[in-house]
Amino acid sequence: MKHTLTLDEARAAIDAGCKAAREIGVAMNIALVDAGNNLLAFVRMDGAWLGSIDIVQNKAYTARAFDQPTKQLGAMAEPGEPLYGIQDTNRGRIVIFAGGVPVKRGNAVVGAVGVSGGRPDQDQKVAEAAAAAITPGG
Amino acid sequence: MKHTLTLDEARAAIDAGCKAAREIGVAMNIALVDAGNNLLAFVRMDGAWLGSIDIVQNKAYTARAFDQPTKQLGAMAEPGEPLYGIQDTNRGRIVIFAGGVPVKRGNAVVGAVGVSGGRPDQDQKVAEAAAAAITPGG
Amino acid sequence: MKHTLTLDEARAAIDAGCKAAREIGVAMNIALVDAGNNLLAFVRMDGAWLGSIDIVQNKAYTARAFDQPTKQLGAMAEPGEPLYGIQDTNRGRIVIFAGGVPVKRGNAVVGAVGVSGGRPDQDQKVAEAAAAAITPGG
Amino acid sequence: MKHTLTLDEARAAIDAGCKAAREIGVAMNIALVDAGNNLLAFVRMDGAWLGSIDIVQNKAYTARAFDQPTKQLGAMAEPGEPLYGIQDTNRGRIVIFAGGVPVKRGNAVVGAVGVSGGRPDQDQKVAEAAAAAITPGG
Repeated sequence: MKHTLTLDEARAAIDAGCKAAREIGVAMNIALVDAGNNLLAFVRMDGAWLGSIDIVQNKAYTARAFDQPTKQLGAMAEPGEPLYGIQDTNRGRIVIFAGGVPVKRGNAVVGAVGVSGGRPDQDQKVAEAAAAAITPGG
Repeated sequence: MKHTLTLDEARAAIDAGCKAAREIGVAMNIALVDAGNNLLAFVRMDGAWLGSIDIVQNKAYTARAFDQPTKQLGAMAEPGEPLYGIQDTNRGRIVIFAGGVPVKRGNAVVGAVGVSGGRPDQDQKVAEAAAAAITPGG
Repeated sequence: MKHTLTLDEARAAIDAGCKAAREIGVAMNIALVDAGNNLLAFVRMDGAWLGSIDIVQNKAYTARAFDQPTKQLGAMAEPGEPLYGIQDTNRGRIVIFAGGVPVKRGNAVVGAVGVSGGRPDQDQKVAEAAAAAITPGG
Repeated sequence: MKHTLTLDEARAAIDAGCKAAREIGVAMNIALVDAGNNLLAFVRMDGAWLGSIDIVQNKAYTARAFDQPTKQLGAMAEPGEPLYGIQDTNRGRIVIFAGGVPVKRGNAVVGAVGVSGGRPDQDQKVAEAAAAAITPGG
């Protein structure tokens, strides 16, 4: 399973994400997709936004779909920018703001994590903490 | 049922909303969702916009999904702002203009109201009147 | 407004439906559409099935769409019957079991009611009680 | 949070479900929804069917939507039976075969679990094991 994430790795990422979320005091939704961009694990912390259930799955999906952070995609999707309109592709699954991060093993993307429940910068911080549990320093 | 709205509370909110709507002379659609973000009650006043049937349900949904007024969300969803693109999430159910308001009991969000049929400021006024019938001063 | 239902009539139907539902001891969802087949009013009694939120709106829609009770349509939609497949039309809005009833004024259909929350025969009974509040004996 | 499931309870259910799945030697997808029928937690065991990602979420959704096991609903949805056609309601989210089970606290349904990955009887067994972790003997 070296080419993709295992459920144990996804759980380690979720635990690290929940820990980071508690440290900043915001209840989060966290989702992981595998190398095939299929949902692997999801949790909603008690009291976290209901609207984020959809968003985290799609943040993770987007990060793996284009092998880059959703935040980076967002800048290119602004009016006047080269990818304006990409948010309307993939049947409504593309998210173009912070909180989706690819997970790498070496140079290969083996999955992605999506986080939502706070401000975009908080979501991003928790997503990076979750991803780091799998790829320290990655 | 302290954790969510009852139908009696939803009806009181609708009555207060209809009263406020008549005072400003605009026929409105009004919807209430409960704590689980499921539709609890809906009315369309005689002659109110048909297009608002969808909008009020989604305004209420959005206000509960993110536990904040839809108006507030709109500012952050403009191009160049941190939540640009959020209006494309949740399968077309997010509304980012005025008229959706959470309903609180103490500090907990127990539901939300959505109003549409007039100008956004009129919708907002009626939504606040409806919510106030449940949480006076809230 | 003789050609369609008013909100006051819809509310009278809902009150009559809720009364009938309490008499048989089942919490119901009740929806009314007008002559244009657009949602006019909806309530979910406390504790009623969440899955019925969608069903009652579509039962009312179906009853007005074909100006007949949904129960009657169901018999014709069985495998081998002339309307087999009708349940796949209208973008998933057709319901082919009991609980949707047209509302008439004289000979004209001016709207419809949908009820769900119990057994089909219970739904039907409550729907008929709701419709009768508008058209006594109808 | 007595009225709904907590994430800790959902995790306990998932752990019990995974244990039961390993005992029968089938990799499963497992999902939990809360009292409001919103996704609370999800896991896909390594190697489990990708097609079950959708199914388990909808099995859990269906079990909470109608407060009964999905298996029970299936018998009533056969051609000629009173709920024939219910599988076409709720915008494609209704599942009418085994593997979805409500979770109760006392007499109240506080959520539901959905399991898919094996034969329906295996799914059912694992779903019951997961639910029992929250409501022993329930």
